[in-house]
Amino acid sequence: MNLYYQANHDSHFLEAEEARHCYKVLRARPGDAIRITDGRGRLYECVVRTVSTHRVEYEPIAIQTVSRPDYGIHMAVCPTRKAERNEWMVEKMTELGVNKIRFVVSEHTHREVIGRVLNMDRLRKIAVAAMKQSQQCYLPEFAIYSTLNEYVSQVAVPNRYIAYVTSGPMPQHLIKQVARKQDVEILIGPEGDFSETEIRMAVLAGFAAVSLGPSRLRTETAAVAACHAAHLAQIL
Amino acid sequence: MNLYYQANHDSHFLEAEEARHCYKVLRARPGDAIRITDGRGRLYECVVRTVSTHRVEYEPIAIQTVSRPDYGIHMAVCPTRKAERNEWMVEKMTELGVNKIRFVVSEHTHREVIGRVLNMDRLRKIAVAAMKQSQQCYLPEFAIYSTLNEYVSQVAVPNRYIAYVTSGPMPQHLIKQVARKQDVEILIGPEGDFSETEIRMAVLAGFAAVSLGPSRLRTETAAVAACHAAHLAQIL
Repeated sequence: MNLYYQANHDSHFLEAEEARHCYKVLRARPGDAIRITDGRGRLYECVVRTVSTHRVEYEPIAIQTVSRPDYGIHMAVCPTRKAERNEWMVEKMTELGVNKIRFVVSEHTHREVIGRVLNMDRLRKIAVAAMKQSQQCYLPEFAIYSTLNEYVSQVAVPNRYIAYVTSGPMPQHLIKQVARKQDVEILIGPEGDFSETEIRMAVLAGFAAVSLGPSRLRTETAAVAACHAAHLAQIL
Repeated sequence: MNLYYQANHDSHFLEAEEARHCYKVLRARPGDAIRITDGRGRLYECVVRTVSTHRVEYEPIAIQTVSRPDYGIHMAVCPTRKAERNEWMVEKMTELGVNKIRFVVSEHTHREVIGRVLNMDRLRKIAVAAMKQSQQCYLPEFAIYSTLNEYVSQVAVPNRYIAYVTSGPMPQHLIKQVARKQDVEILIGPEGDFSETEIRMAVLAGFAAVSLGPSRLRTETAAVAACHAAHLAQIL
Protein backbone atom coordinates (compact mmCIF):
# COMPACT_ATOMS: atom_id res chain seq x y z
CA MET A 1 0.00 0.00 0.00
CA ASN A 2 1.28 3.48 -0.82
CA LEU A 3 2.65 5.71 1.87
CA TYR A 4 1.99 9.46 2.10
CA TYR A 5 3.65 12.23 4.03
CA GLN A 6 2.00 14.76 6.32
CA ALA A 7 4.36 16.35 8.86
CA ASN A 8 1.57 17.87 10.93
CA HIS A 9 -0.37 15.44 13.12
CA ASP A 10 -3.34 17.77 13.40
CA SER A 11 -3.80 18.22 9.66
CA HIS A 12 -5.90 15.32 8.49
CA PHE A 13 -5.44 16.07 4.82
CA LEU A 14 -2.91 15.89 2.00
CA GLU A 15 -2.20 18.93 -0.16
CA ALA A 16 -0.31 19.89 -3.29
CA GLU A 17 1.86 17.11 -4.78
CA GLU A 18 0.82 14.51 -2.19
CA ALA A 19 -2.89 15.14 -2.87
CA ARG A 20 -2.37 15.13 -6.63
CA HIS A 21 -0.49 11.85 -6.51
CA CYS A 22 -3.09 10.24 -4.26
CA TYR A 23 -6.00 11.39 -6.39
CA LYS A 24 -4.68 11.41 -9.95
CA VAL A 25 -2.11 8.65 -10.00
CA LEU A 26 -3.42 6.20 -7.43
CA ARG A 27 -7.06 7.18 -7.93
CA ALA A 28 -7.91 7.06 -4.24
CA ARG A 29 -11.64 7.30 -3.55
CA PRO A 30 -13.62 7.96 -0.37
CA GLY A 31 -13.51 4.83 1.82
CA ASP A 32 -10.08 3.71 0.54
CA ALA A 33 -7.38 2.84 3.06
CA ILE A 34 -4.13 4.83 2.90
CA ARG A 35 -1.08 5.10 5.10
CA ILE A 36 0.44 8.37 6.30
CA THR A 37 3.76 9.02 8.01
CA ASP A 38 4.97 12.17 9.73
CA GLY A 39 8.62 11.39 8.86
CA ARG A 40 9.36 11.17 12.59
CA GLY A 41 8.47 7.52 13.13
CA ARG A 42 4.67 7.65 13.31
CA LEU A 43 2.61 5.61 10.91
CA TYR A 44 -1.14 6.21 10.58
CA GLU A 45 -3.56 3.79 8.98
CA CYS A 46 -6.25 6.06 7.55
CA VAL A 47 -9.50 6.07 5.63
CA VAL A 48 -9.99 8.56 2.81
CA ARG A 49 -12.96 10.90 3.42
CA THR A 50 -13.01 13.30 0.48
CA VAL A 51 -10.80 13.69 -2.58
CA SER A 52 -10.00 16.42 -5.06
CA THR A 53 -6.92 17.34 -7.09
CA HIS A 54 -5.70 19.73 -4.43
CA ARG A 55 -6.83 18.14 -1.22
CA VAL A 56 -7.40 14.63 0.11
CA GLU A 57 -9.01 14.46 3.55
CA TYR A 58 -8.57 11.37 5.68
CA GLU A 59 -9.31 10.04 9.12
CA PRO A 60 -6.67 8.15 11.09
CA ILE A 61 -8.01 4.89 12.48
CA ALA A 62 -4.81 3.41 13.92
CA ILE A 63 -1.43 4.80 14.91
CA GLN A 64 1.82 2.97 15.42
CA THR A 65 5.30 4.16 16.26
CA VAL A 66 7.99 2.58 14.11
CA SER A 67 11.10 2.09 16.23
CA ARG A 68 14.47 3.18 14.98
CA PRO A 69 17.38 0.72 14.75
CA ASP A 70 19.77 0.74 17.72
CA TYR A 71 22.22 2.88 15.76
CA GLY A 72 22.01 6.11 13.80
CA ILE A 73 24.02 7.21 10.77
CA HIS A 74 25.00 10.85 10.43
CA MET A 75 26.63 11.67 7.11
CA ALA A 76 28.58 14.89 6.56
CA VAL A 77 29.52 15.71 2.99
CA CYS A 78 30.93 18.62 1.05
CA PRO A 79 28.48 19.39 -1.76
CA THR A 80 29.59 18.57 -5.30
CA ARG A 81 29.50 21.20 -8.07
CA LYS A 82 26.57 19.53 -9.79
CA ALA A 83 23.13 19.84 -8.23
CA GLU A 84 21.98 16.50 -9.61
CA ARG A 85 24.84 14.66 -7.93
CA ASN A 86 23.87 16.16 -4.56
CA GLU A 87 20.25 15.24 -5.23
CA TRP A 88 21.17 11.71 -6.17
CA MET A 89 23.26 11.38 -3.03
CA VAL A 90 20.34 12.51 -0.83
CA GLU A 91 17.95 10.12 -2.58
CA LYS A 92 20.22 7.10 -2.27
CA MET A 93 21.29 7.71 1.34
CA THR A 94 17.63 8.18 2.28
CA GLU A 95 16.67 4.90 0.58
CA LEU A 96 19.44 3.06 2.40
CA GLY A 97 18.58 4.82 5.65
CA VAL A 98 20.30 7.91 7.08
CA ASN A 99 19.43 9.98 10.14
CA LYS A 100 21.23 13.24 9.46
CA ILE A 101 22.70 14.76 6.32
CA ARG A 102 25.07 17.63 6.92
CA PHE A 103 26.50 19.70 4.10
CA VAL A 104 29.87 21.19 4.94
CA VAL A 105 31.52 23.96 2.94
CA SER A 106 35.22 23.06 2.99
CA GLU A 107 38.18 25.11 1.76
CA HIS A 108 38.10 23.25 -1.56
CA THR A 109 34.33 23.37 -1.97
CA HIS A 110 33.25 25.58 -4.82
CA ARG A 111 31.67 28.33 -2.71
CA GLU A 112 30.30 30.28 -5.64
CA VAL A 113 27.95 27.44 -6.51
CA ILE A 114 26.58 26.58 -3.05
CA GLY A 115 23.32 28.45 -3.57
CA ARG A 116 22.74 26.82 -6.93
CA VAL A 117 23.72 23.25 -6.03
CA LEU A 118 22.05 23.12 -2.61
CA ASN A 119 18.39 23.88 -3.06
CA MET A 120 17.25 22.71 0.37
CA ASP A 121 13.55 22.72 -0.52
CA ARG A 122 14.24 20.46 -3.45
CA LEU A 123 16.54 18.20 -1.44
CA ARG A 124 13.87 17.82 1.27
CA LYS A 125 11.29 16.89 -1.38
CA ILE A 126 13.66 14.28 -2.79
CA ALA A 127 14.18 12.88 0.71
CA VAL A 128 10.38 12.70 1.25
CA ALA A 129 9.92 10.84 -2.04
CA ALA A 130 12.77 8.42 -1.23
CA MET A 131 11.44 7.82 2.29
CA LYS A 132 8.00 6.93 0.91
CA GLN A 133 9.43 4.87 -1.95
CA SER A 134 11.47 2.77 0.47
CA GLN A 135 8.55 2.49 2.91
CA GLN A 136 10.32 4.19 5.79
CA CYS A 137 8.86 6.50 8.43
CA TYR A 138 11.86 8.66 9.27
CA LEU A 139 13.04 11.64 7.25
CA PRO A 140 16.69 12.63 7.52
CA GLU A 141 17.44 15.96 9.19
CA PHE A 142 19.39 18.47 7.12
CA ALA A 143 21.92 21.09 8.14
CA ILE A 144 24.50 23.28 6.39
CA TYR A 145 27.79 24.41 7.94
CA SER A 146 29.80 27.15 6.33
CA THR A 147 33.21 25.90 7.46
CA LEU A 148 34.66 22.58 8.58
CA ASN A 149 35.46 24.18 11.93
CA GLU A 150 31.81 25.13 12.44
CA TYR A 151 30.77 21.57 11.60
CA VAL A 152 33.41 19.86 13.76
CA SER A 153 32.65 22.09 16.78
CA GLN A 154 29.07 20.91 17.03
CA VAL A 155 29.54 17.14 16.48
CA ALA A 156 28.35 15.38 19.62
CA VAL A 157 28.65 11.73 18.56
CA PRO A 158 31.85 10.12 19.93
CA ASN A 159 32.16 7.57 17.06
CA ARG A 160 33.42 9.74 14.24
CA TYR A 161 35.22 8.90 11.03
CA ILE A 162 36.75 10.77 8.12
CA ALA A 163 37.34 9.44 4.60
CA TYR A 164 39.87 11.32 2.51
CA VAL A 165 42.46 10.58 -0.14
CA THR A 166 45.92 9.99 1.30
CA SER A 167 49.26 9.25 -0.24
CA GLY A 168 50.33 7.53 2.99
CA PRO A 169 49.42 3.99 4.07
CA MET A 170 45.73 3.22 3.55
CA PRO A 171 43.75 3.13 6.81
CA GLN A 172 41.43 0.21 7.57
CA HIS A 173 38.13 0.16 5.74
CA LEU A 174 35.20 1.91 7.43
CA ILE A 175 33.30 -1.37 7.70
CA LYS A 176 36.05 -2.74 9.99
CA GLN A 177 36.32 0.37 12.16
CA VAL A 178 32.77 1.64 12.50
CA ALA A 179 31.08 1.26 15.91
CA ARG A 180 28.09 -1.09 16.22
CA LYS A 181 24.80 -0.41 17.96
CA GLN A 182 25.73 3.24 18.45
CA ASP A 183 25.36 6.46 16.51
CA VAL A 184 28.15 7.14 14.06
CA GLU A 185 29.26 10.32 12.32
CA ILE A 186 30.99 9.98 8.94
CA LEU A 187 32.68 12.87 7.14
CA ILE A 188 33.42 12.56 3.42
CA GLY A 189 36.02 14.69 1.64
CA PRO A 190 35.14 17.04 -1.23
CA GLU A 191 36.24 17.05 -4.86
CA GLY A 192 39.85 18.18 -4.56
CA ASP A 193 39.93 16.72 -1.03
CA PHE A 194 40.29 18.47 2.32
CA SER A 195 43.19 20.84 2.92
CA GLU A 196 46.02 19.71 5.21
CA THR A 197 44.74 22.11 7.87
CA GLU A 198 41.24 20.66 7.67
CA ILE A 199 42.49 17.08 7.94
CA ARG A 200 44.56 18.01 11.01
CA MET A 201 41.54 19.76 12.54
CA ALA A 202 39.31 16.72 12.07
CA VAL A 203 41.91 14.26 13.34
CA LEU A 204 42.50 16.44 16.43
CA ALA A 205 38.73 16.46 16.95
CA GLY A 206 38.83 12.67 17.13
CA PHE A 207 37.78 11.72 13.59
CA ALA A 208 39.44 8.38 12.76
CA ALA A 209 40.78 8.02 9.21
CA VAL A 210 39.00 5.30 7.25
CA SER A 211 39.29 3.86 3.76
CA LEU A 212 36.35 3.20 1.45
CA GLY A 213 38.23 0.72 -0.73
CA PRO A 214 40.80 0.78 -3.51
CA SER A 215 38.75 2.74 -6.10
CA ARG A 216 38.94 6.52 -6.23
CA LEU A 217 35.25 7.33 -5.74
CA ARG A 218 33.44 10.54 -6.56
CA THR A 219 32.24 12.44 -3.48
CA GLU A 220 28.62 11.38 -3.88
CA THR A 221 29.56 7.74 -4.52
CA ALA A 222 31.82 7.76 -1.47
CA ALA A 223 28.99 9.14 0.70
CA VAL A 224 26.50 6.51 -0.43
CA ALA A 225 29.07 3.71 -0.14
CA ALA A 226 30.04 4.85 3.38
CA CYS A 227 26.41 5.06 4.49
CA HIS A 228 25.80 1.55 3.12
CA ALA A 229 28.99 0.13 4.70
CA ALA A 230 27.97 1.56 8.10
CA HIS A 231 24.64 -0.29 7.81
CA LEU A 232 26.33 -3.53 6.72
CA ALA A 233 28.76 -3.40 9.65
CA GLN A 234 25.73 -3.69 11.98
CA ILE A 235 24.73 -7.12 10.66
CA LEU A 236 28.19 -8.72 10.65
CA MET B 1 47.79 12.25 -13.52
CA ASN B 2 44.82 11.92 -15.86
CA LEU B 3 43.99 8.65 -17.51
CA TYR B 4 42.81 8.31 -21.13
CA TYR B 5 41.19 5.50 -23.03
CA GLN B 6 42.28 3.96 -26.31
CA ALA B 7 40.97 0.45 -26.92
CA ASN B 8 43.29 -0.24 -29.82
CA HIS B 9 46.92 -0.93 -28.91
CA ASP B 10 48.17 -0.05 -32.37
CA SER B 11 46.54 3.38 -32.50
CA HIS B 12 48.93 5.74 -30.78
CA PHE B 13 46.51 8.63 -30.74
CA LEU B 14 43.37 9.93 -29.01
CA GLU B 15 40.40 11.09 -31.04
CA ALA B 16 37.07 12.84 -30.57
CA GLU B 17 36.07 13.44 -26.91
CA GLU B 18 39.30 11.97 -25.51
CA ALA B 19 41.42 14.25 -27.69
CA ARG B 20 39.26 17.29 -26.94
CA HIS B 21 39.49 16.71 -23.20
CA CYS B 22 43.24 16.18 -23.33
CA TYR B 23 43.86 19.26 -25.43
CA LYS B 24 41.21 21.74 -24.36
CA VAL B 25 40.56 20.91 -20.73
CA LEU B 26 43.91 19.59 -19.55
CA ARG B 27 45.92 21.62 -22.05
CA ALA B 28 48.35 18.83 -22.82
CA ARG B 29 51.34 19.94 -24.86
CA PRO B 30 54.00 18.00 -26.79
CA GLY B 31 56.43 16.42 -24.33
CA ASP B 32 53.80 16.07 -21.55
CA ALA B 33 53.39 12.69 -19.86
CA ILE B 34 49.94 11.06 -20.05
CA ARG B 35 48.57 7.65 -19.15
CA ILE B 36 46.46 5.50 -21.45
CA THR B 37 44.48 2.36 -20.68
CA ASP B 38 42.90 -0.10 -23.09
CA GLY B 39 40.14 -0.98 -20.59
CA ARG B 40 41.46 -4.54 -20.51
CA GLY B 41 44.09 -4.15 -17.85
CA ARG B 42 46.93 -2.53 -19.76
CA LEU B 43 48.31 0.80 -18.64
CA TYR B 44 50.67 2.77 -20.88
CA GLU B 45 52.88 5.61 -19.70
CA CYS B 46 53.12 7.86 -22.74
CA VAL B 47 54.65 11.06 -24.00
CA VAL B 48 52.52 13.44 -26.04
CA ARG B 49 53.90 14.03 -29.55
CA THR B 50 51.40 16.32 -31.28
CA VAL B 51 48.15 17.90 -30.18
CA SER B 52 45.09 19.37 -31.85
CA THR B 53 41.41 19.57 -30.93
CA HIS B 54 40.61 16.40 -32.82
CA ARG B 55 43.72 14.30 -32.39
CA VAL B 56 46.43 13.85 -29.77
CA GLU B 57 49.33 11.62 -30.82
CA TYR B 58 51.47 9.96 -28.21
CA GLU B 59 54.27 7.45 -27.85
CA PRO B 60 54.11 4.70 -25.23
CA ILE B 61 57.30 4.53 -23.21
CA ALA B 62 56.30 1.93 -20.61
CA ILE B 63 53.59 -0.69 -20.37
CA GLN B 64 52.29 -2.46 -17.31
CA THR B 65 49.51 -4.97 -16.81
CA VAL B 66 47.24 -4.16 -13.89
CA SER B 67 46.15 -7.41 -12.27
CA ARG B 68 42.53 -8.03 -11.46
CA PRO B 69 41.43 -8.89 -7.93
CA ASP B 70 41.04 -12.63 -7.21
CA TYR B 71 37.27 -12.33 -7.66
CA GLY B 72 34.98 -10.92 -10.30
CA ILE B 73 31.53 -9.37 -9.91
CA HIS B 74 28.92 -9.99 -12.61
CA MET B 75 25.77 -7.96 -12.11
CA ALA B 76 22.54 -8.82 -13.93
CA VAL B 77 19.77 -6.23 -13.72
CA CYS B 78 16.43 -5.57 -15.33
CA PRO B 79 16.56 -2.07 -16.81
CA THR B 80 14.46 0.60 -15.10
CA ARG B 81 11.98 2.74 -17.07
CA LYS B 82 14.14 5.82 -16.80
CA ALA B 83 17.28 6.04 -18.90
CA GLU B 84 19.08 8.22 -16.35
CA ARG B 85 18.59 5.63 -13.61
CA ASN B 86 20.21 2.96 -15.80
CA GLU B 87 23.02 5.36 -16.63
CA TRP B 88 23.55 6.20 -13.00
CA MET B 89 23.65 2.50 -12.11
CA VAL B 90 26.32 1.82 -14.76
CA GLU B 91 28.39 4.79 -13.58
CA LYS B 92 28.29 3.82 -9.92
CA MET B 93 28.89 0.09 -10.41
CA THR B 94 31.85 0.93 -12.66
CA GLU B 95 33.30 3.29 -10.05
CA LEU B 96 32.97 0.63 -7.36
CA GLY B 97 34.30 -2.05 -9.73
CA VAL B 98 32.23 -4.49 -11.79
CA ASN B 99 33.36 -7.01 -14.42
CA LYS B 100 30.16 -7.66 -16.32
CA ILE B 101 26.87 -5.81 -16.54
CA ARG B 102 24.03 -7.81 -18.02
CA PHE B 103 20.65 -6.28 -18.77
CA VAL B 104 17.84 -8.80 -18.59
CA VAL B 105 14.35 -8.18 -19.97
CA SER B 106 12.05 -9.85 -17.45
CA GLU B 107 8.30 -10.44 -17.67
CA HIS B 108 7.67 -7.26 -15.67
CA THR B 109 10.22 -5.15 -17.49
CA HIS B 110 8.63 -2.45 -19.59
CA ARG B 111 9.53 -3.88 -22.98
CA GLU B 112 8.24 -0.94 -24.96
CA VAL B 113 10.92 1.29 -23.48
CA ILE B 114 13.98 -0.96 -23.81
CA GLY B 115 15.28 0.81 -26.90
CA ARG B 116 14.87 4.22 -25.32
CA VAL B 117 16.27 3.43 -21.87
CA LEU B 118 19.18 1.25 -22.98
CA ASN B 119 21.35 3.26 -25.30
CA MET B 120 24.36 0.95 -25.26
CA ASP B 121 26.71 3.48 -26.91
CA ARG B 122 25.87 6.00 -24.24
CA LEU B 123 26.19 3.43 -21.45
CA ARG B 124 29.62 2.37 -22.71
CA LYS B 125 30.74 6.03 -22.77
CA ILE B 126 29.53 6.47 -19.21
CA ALA B 127 31.47 3.35 -18.18
CA VAL B 128 34.62 4.68 -19.89
CA ALA B 129 34.29 8.01 -18.06
CA ALA B 130 33.70 6.27 -14.71
CA MET B 131 36.64 3.89 -15.27
CA LYS B 132 38.96 6.81 -15.94
CA GLN B 133 37.53 8.91 -13.11
CA SER B 134 38.13 6.11 -10.62
CA GLN B 135 41.59 5.37 -12.07
CA GLN B 136 40.83 1.81 -13.08
CA CYS B 137 42.08 -0.09 -16.13
CA TYR B 138 39.21 -2.50 -16.71
CA LEU B 139 35.97 -1.67 -18.49
CA PRO B 140 32.90 -3.75 -17.67
CA GLU B 141 31.57 -5.99 -20.44
CA PHE B 142 27.95 -5.41 -21.43
CA ALA B 143 25.30 -7.83 -22.66
CA ILE B 144 21.52 -7.79 -23.13
CA TYR B 145 19.27 -10.84 -22.76
CA SER B 146 15.73 -10.73 -24.00
CA THR B 147 14.29 -13.17 -21.45
CA LEU B 148 15.30 -14.40 -18.03
CA ASN B 149 15.55 -17.90 -19.49
CA GLU B 150 18.06 -16.75 -22.09
CA TYR B 151 20.13 -15.08 -19.38
CA VAL B 152 19.97 -18.00 -16.93
CA SER B 153 20.89 -20.55 -19.63
CA GLN B 154 24.26 -18.94 -20.32
CA VAL B 155 25.42 -18.20 -16.74
CA ALA B 156 28.62 -20.17 -16.16
CA VAL B 157 29.60 -18.92 -12.69
CA PRO B 158 28.64 -21.43 -9.96
CA ASN B 159 28.26 -18.77 -7.22
CA ARG B 160 24.97 -17.15 -8.14
CA TYR B 161 22.51 -15.10 -6.15
CA ILE B 162 19.13 -13.52 -6.68
CA ALA B 163 17.65 -10.56 -4.78
CA TYR B 164 13.90 -10.18 -4.96
CA VAL B 165 11.07 -9.00 -2.76
CA THR B 166 9.46 -11.82 -0.82
CA SER B 167 6.57 -11.94 1.60
CA GLY B 168 8.12 -15.06 3.18
CA PRO B 169 10.97 -15.12 5.71
CA MET B 170 13.85 -12.85 4.73
CA PRO B 171 16.90 -14.74 3.45
CA GLN B 172 20.36 -13.92 4.80
CA HIS B 173 21.98 -10.76 3.52
CA LEU B 174 24.13 -11.07 0.40
CA ILE B 175 27.23 -10.00 2.34
CA LYS B 176 26.90 -13.11 4.51
CA GLN B 177 26.25 -15.54 1.66
CA VAL B 178 28.45 -14.32 -1.17
CA ALA B 179 31.51 -16.45 -2.09
CA ARG B 180 34.97 -15.02 -1.49
CA LYS B 181 37.94 -15.06 -3.87
CA GLN B 182 35.74 -16.39 -6.66
CA ASP B 183 33.60 -14.94 -9.39
CA VAL B 184 30.04 -14.19 -8.35
CA GLU B 185 26.88 -13.60 -10.38
CA ILE B 186 24.18 -11.41 -8.82
CA LEU B 187 20.70 -11.00 -10.30
CA ILE B 188 18.55 -8.06 -9.20
CA GLY B 189 14.77 -7.99 -9.59
CA PRO B 190 12.97 -5.38 -11.69
CA GLU B 191 10.43 -2.73 -10.72
CA GLY B 192 7.37 -4.85 -10.03
CA ASP B 193 9.66 -7.78 -9.18
CA PHE B 194 10.12 -11.09 -10.98
CA SER B 195 7.11 -13.29 -11.76
CA GLU B 196 6.61 -16.48 -9.74
CA THR B 197 7.69 -18.48 -12.79
CA GLU B 198 10.89 -16.49 -13.14
CA ILE B 199 11.78 -16.87 -9.47
CA ARG B 200 11.24 -20.64 -9.72
CA MET B 201 13.39 -20.78 -12.85
CA ALA B 202 16.26 -18.90 -11.19
CA VAL B 203 16.08 -20.95 -7.99
CA LEU B 204 16.06 -24.20 -10.02
CA ALA B 205 19.13 -22.87 -11.87
CA GLY B 206 20.92 -22.60 -8.55
CA PHE B 207 20.48 -18.90 -7.74
CA ALA B 208 20.44 -18.53 -3.94
CA ALA B 209 17.93 -16.03 -2.55
CA VAL B 210 19.62 -13.14 -0.74
CA SER B 211 18.43 -10.04 1.10
CA LEU B 212 19.85 -6.56 0.59
CA GLY B 213 18.60 -5.23 3.92
CA PRO B 214 15.34 -4.03 5.44
CA SER B 215 14.71 -1.05 3.11
CA ARG B 216 12.74 -1.48 -0.08
CA LEU B 217 15.33 -0.28 -2.59
CA ARG B 218 14.80 0.89 -6.14
CA THR B 219 16.25 -1.46 -8.76
CA GLU B 220 19.24 0.72 -9.49
CA THR B 221 19.97 1.30 -5.80
CA ALA B 222 19.71 -2.44 -5.14
CA ALA B 223 22.17 -3.17 -7.96
CA VAL B 224 24.74 -0.67 -6.69
CA ALA B 225 24.28 -1.79 -3.07
CA ALA B 226 24.68 -5.46 -4.06
CA CYS B 227 27.81 -4.75 -6.10
CA HIS B 228 29.27 -2.83 -3.15
CA ALA B 229 28.31 -5.54 -0.61
CA ALA B 230 29.99 -8.20 -2.80
CA HIS B 231 33.22 -6.15 -2.69
CA LEU B 232 32.98 -5.59 1.06
CA ALA B 233 32.48 -9.31 1.70
CA GLN B 234 35.96 -9.90 0.24
CA ILE B 235 37.72 -7.83 2.92
CA LEU B 236 35.90 -9.24 5.95
